[in-house]
Amino acid sequence: MRDQYYEQLDSIVDDLVALTNSVRRSVSGATAALLNADGQAAETVIANDKDIDEATELIEERALLLLATQQPVATDLRQLVATLRMVADLDRMGDLSVHIAKVARMRVPDSAVPEPLRPTIVQMAAVADQMIDAASRIVANRDVIAAQRLEEEDDEMDQLRRSLFRTLLSDEWGHGVEPAIDLALLGRYYERIADHAVSMARRVVYLVTGELKNGV
Amino acid sequence: MRDQYYEQLDSIVDDLVALTNSVRRSVSGATAALLNADGQAAETVIANDKDIDEATELIEERALLLLATQQPVATDLRQLVATLRMVADLDRMGDLSVHIAKVARMRVPDSAVPEPLRPTIVQMAAVADQMIDAASRIVANRDVIAAQRLEEEDDEMDQLRRSLFRTLLSDEWGHGVEPAIDLALLGRYYERIADHAVSMARRVVYLVTGELKNGV
Repeated sequence: MRDQYYEQLDSIVDDLVALTNSVRRSVSGATAALLNADGQAAETVIANDKDIDEATELIEERALLLLATQQPVATDLRQLVATLRMVADLDRMGDLSVHIAKVARMRVPDSAVPEPLRPTIVQMAAVADQMIDAASRIVANRDVIAAQRLEEEDDEMDQLRRSLFRTLLSDEWGHGVEPAIDLALLGRYYERIADHAVSMARRVVYLVTGELKNGV
Repeated sequence: MRDQYYEQLDSIVDDLVALTNSVRRSVSGATAALLNADGQAAETVIANDKDIDEATELIEERALLLLATQQPVATDLRQLVATLRMVADLDRMGDLSVHIAKVARMRVPDSAVPEPLRPTIVQMAAVADQMIDAASRIVANRDVIAAQRLEEEDDEMDQLRRSLFRTLLSDEWGHGVEPAIDLALLGRYYERIADHAVSMARRVVYLVTGELKNGV
């Protein structure tokens, strides 16, 4: 009976890692749609979000069932509570990838990203991708050291966002209002994806150390 | 012992309602700062966010402590899990009010909202305010009917956001890129605040009916 319970706890962590990898694919799919002005890729991201939603709900239901039936304490309880919060982060990251895909789709056959800002968006997407990958491994291995490193990557994301805004607001910006709004929102979506990756990492730190850091 | 436990459960709900009201004040303070180009009001909202963060953490810790020590089942368990999710919503709504206040502060002594868009922002802020107020009463009274009505108010918010974007992208928009980006982000912040109010309401529906609606 207890063995089965620990199997279920482990299997929830496995599914959380798998969901993190799905979300990572969704974000990189949205980035590809955006940079290549690929309407089909955008549609795929948008359509696949229901799979992410379903996986999210399934993990949540199983975590709640374990909470209700096994009445875990200490670390197991923290594991399940952390799972509920991480699932909420992943759900939201999936939604943000859909927002990116919808901006891409709206501008097809053009790219929503004008040439001068491609390197910045490429870099933001790369940082987001690395951060989700790191979050996945942090969850799988309960890696507190990697979790702390993730905050530094998040600083890089913040700098990229600031640089993006400087370009949009400079006198040289010659692309008008519509692309500027697209880019401001895209910058915000990538930044929020990164924030959620950090939030997941902080949940793992809390799980391991019992210490909750502000802003989780 | 059980009496004390139910007192603690009730007191968590009371504190959740109080926190919702604090968040409501923070959002309306940010709106006032924005519309009146009031730097001092903006500073107050930004400074007071730490109180919201602290209240958030305190409720979360108490909910976790009850989960760990009382091992609740059924409705009590759902109540505590819903509390954890609602606390995360409120934390985020507080952050969004800070984002609004920071946009206001950045443009002082001007208002970030050009004259033609004032009515739209006033209306978005009013809808957000009503929705937070409704969320507070929904949490206090477990009012499922009011929770379902909240979705309709959210439709109004979506319409206002679309109308805002139409104005920003119309040929008549003569205020340039910077205010357009401010307004696009402000529109998004109010919309997200409304989304979180809806999410809180859905948590209450789940609490009462046991049914989880997608996208909570």
